[in-house]
Amino acid sequence: MIKANDPTRRSWVEVPSGSDFPIQNLPFGVFRTKSNPSPRLCTAIGESVVDLAVLNYMDLLDDLEIDHEVFNNRYLNDLMALGKAKVRELRDRLAEILDAVNDEAKQLSWHFLHPMEKVELLMPVQVGDYTDFYSSLEHATNIGKMLRPDNPLLPNWKHIPVGYHGRASSIVASGTPFVRPQGQMLPPGAEQPIFGPTKLLDFELEMAFVVGKANPMGKPIRIENAENHIFGLMLFNDWSARDIQGWEYQPLGPFLAKNFASTVSPWVVTLDALEPFRVAGPAQDPKPFPYLQFEGEKSFDIDLEVEIESESGAKATVSRSNFKYMYWNMAQQLAHHTVNGCNMNIGDLCGSGTISGLTTDSYGSMMELTWRGSQPIKLSDGSERKFINDGDTVTLRGWCERNGIRIGFGEAVGKVLPALTD
Amino acid sequence: MIKANDPTRRSWVEVPSGSDFPIQNLPFGVFRTKSNPSPRLCTAIGESVVDLAVLNYMDLLDDLEIDHEVFNNRYLNDLMALGKAKVRELRDRLAEILDAVNDEAKQLSWHFLHPMEKVELLMPVQVGDYTDFYSSLEHATNIGKMLRPDNPLLPNWKHIPVGYHGRASSIVASGTPFVRPQGQMLPPGAEQPIFGPTKLLDFELEMAFVVGKANPMGKPIRIENAENHIFGLMLFNDWSARDIQGWEYQPLGPFLAKNFASTVSPWVVTLDALEPFRVAGPAQDPKPFPYLQFEGEKSFDIDLEVEIESESGAKATVSRSNFKYMYWNMAQQLAHHTVNGCNMNIGDLCGSGTISGLTTDSYGSMMELTWRGSQPIKLSDGSERKFINDGDTVTLRGWCERNGIRIGFGEAVGKVLPALTD
Repeated sequence: MIKANDPTRRSWVEVPSGSDFPIQNLPFGVFRTKSNPSPRLCTAIGESVVDLAVLNYMDLLDDLEIDHEVFNNRYLNDLMALGKAKVRELRDRLAEILDAVNDEAKQLSWHFLHPMEKVELLMPVQVGDYTDFYSSLEHATNIGKMLRPDNPLLPNWKHIPVGYHGRASSIVASGTPFVRPQGQMLPPGAEQPIFGPTKLLDFELEMAFVVGKANPMGKPIRIENAENHIFGLMLFNDWSARDIQGWEYQPLGPFLAKNFASTVSPWVVTLDALEPFRVAGPAQDPKPFPYLQFEGEKSFDIDLEVEIESESGAKATVSRSNFKYMYWNMAQQLAHHTVNGCNMNIGDLCGSGTISGLTTDSYGSMMELTWRGSQPIKLSDGSERKFINDGDTVTLRGWCERNGIRIGFGEAVGKVLPALTD
Repeated sequence: MIKANDPTRRSWVEVPSGSDFPIQNLPFGVFRTKSNPSPRLCTAIGESVVDLAVLNYMDLLDDLEIDHEVFNNRYLNDLMALGKAKVRELRDRLAEILDAVNDEAKQLSWHFLHPMEKVELLMPVQVGDYTDFYSSLEHATNIGKMLRPDNPLLPNWKHIPVGYHGRASSIVASGTPFVRPQGQMLPPGAEQPIFGPTKLLDFELEMAFVVGKANPMGKPIRIENAENHIFGLMLFNDWSARDIQGWEYQPLGPFLAKNFASTVSPWVVTLDALEPFRVAGPAQDPKPFPYLQFEGEKSFDIDLEVEIESESGAKATVSRSNFKYMYWNMAQQLAHHTVNGCNMNIGDLCGSGTISGLTTDSYGSMMELTWRGSQPIKLSDGSERKFINDGDTVTLRGWCERNGIRIGFGEAVGKVLPALTD
């Protein structure tokens, strides 16, 4: 067992029941405070943030021999570059520091502990390239049914973890609002496109994994090594403008429909912390090619939910899904991505694709939940949503829970502002 | 007129007839030498490379007040960040230093001048995001004819500069070889895919522009300002595996078929240097939306050619094309890319898409030149090529020429190594 995952350990920091951040989680993030605006690395425990730069300055991480610049850093990339073994040592050490028996650390805690609501959590990873997969059978089938009723699932889908390249520059940290995108779209039945703000703004409930180890160009990552290259996971909202997408996506895929904004949660939960939550994925038939065959449990049991809140405070939890529904797992995605020699860099992000379950309340997008707008969803004040309105805030949440231990991801929050007017 | 473009100016450095690099060009690159392996900025003149870090160290650039770290740099990004006005001053100064009248500089030239064949030219730009457009009407029509004979050009094509996101990590400098990619493909007539090395490896003759000025997320770049955001151009070979592409690209676009390698030329030729070569582009009918309408000449008359050389030295120039054939120009591409609020960063690369002309010898890919392999091309030794063989080297060249002044791009050279064996 990974030492930091010890389920019997408790912290001297108060961890309220239902918290995403018990001492068994210890995810990594980047934060700053009003009194010290320099970005630096942190971990989360309960409702607090732990300043790793200060812990290091206090010599509490000394024998790990990690350069102070790794902690006094705008991004996690240099930490990830140290490798999994070193990061495991660091998580173990953080667990010791925060352990209930460590009264000395508790006495010093005013140096390094901040209330989470008082700090600014920043985009934690410098993303080089961002790839989005399309790995939920239910999502691909749902979308396929709407676009190609006679042929919902394309012939390649069960052979290939279908993926495409996305835009890295517009991936933003939770809490960053964005304006409703404008673009071209072809109204139903029209012969000519129109230009204006999207009418069909959607979220996509996804997880994304962060690459923590590079491979050189020309050298594929074999599936049995793939998880060594995955540092951790985040929640990912791949905002989508369905009408712009419908008009532009043939033949080269989505472009402006998706590159205006994507929202990630501020914490990278390590694959180590998720170890206890491995499960088998769905059976794969037909049997994939050898480079996609794997042994053991490569899926993770992560509960997911999506909440919409209107400007006036009306709310609804519109989806409850689970990461384990994914047909293709992360190891398969990474083995596929590199089988042609494509090189991955530390910090690259791979989105899972929309995570839909079998039931209609587990779909991961408004497109599916309202079936293209034909079955609107009601918020708590009775107002209806076919897609996402101006002023709406969409929040993704995710957590694993077993035997009283809950490893959570926090939230990925994004608010839609009205489109620009010229 | 831009001062550095003065057509009457001559240099004390010998510039052979037919050189891509007269004193009117002064493109930017990054190089290192055996005796000094630190990467640093340079320009080209004739068959020589000029070390800008040394020029600066010698106080020859002093009053420009550019920090020495801009020149002692792995990439051009920090130079571009200074803005066009400052880079224009720098090009003017370089022209003065290299001017035939400047005997003093000539006497000192052993400090800063290197024979080009003795230096290593590196990937000049740190690419954040890479986008590839699809803006040649002839190319889109040719490919469409092969894939959809009844419906070659999709309805969106004349309304939208169609584009998609590509992979930045595998863009490599001219001279970098790569291994033939492996992947899944569906043989003609087969029901089930196979796995192996691509049989249909292709080049794509493209130009790419480098973004030199960022826009914040949510704020589109208006078409009248678009060229202010374009620093310069390079040759771009978007290597493609046609059989992998055919099997994977529906519905989200090309992925492994293109992300194994792309080759760029080592010099970024500034938009300033290309000013004298503006021409009108093709007439656009239907009239594009207002955000895509422009005034003045936004296309550039750049001759292009592609040469294949086999391992044994047999050669053929297989295509002669021109950048001016592009239906959508760069200003339109950039205005479209950002109309939804997508943010561009300094160093982002936008490929034009394959540049094909009207005649069969001006097509920009083997797919078109051999019409999917049905009309092979002969090399000088009589051997035939349907696509690109192991050991083949593909070289792109590009240049503008008018009134005895030739502004060239150098070469983008890539060699194909055999596929990995397990």
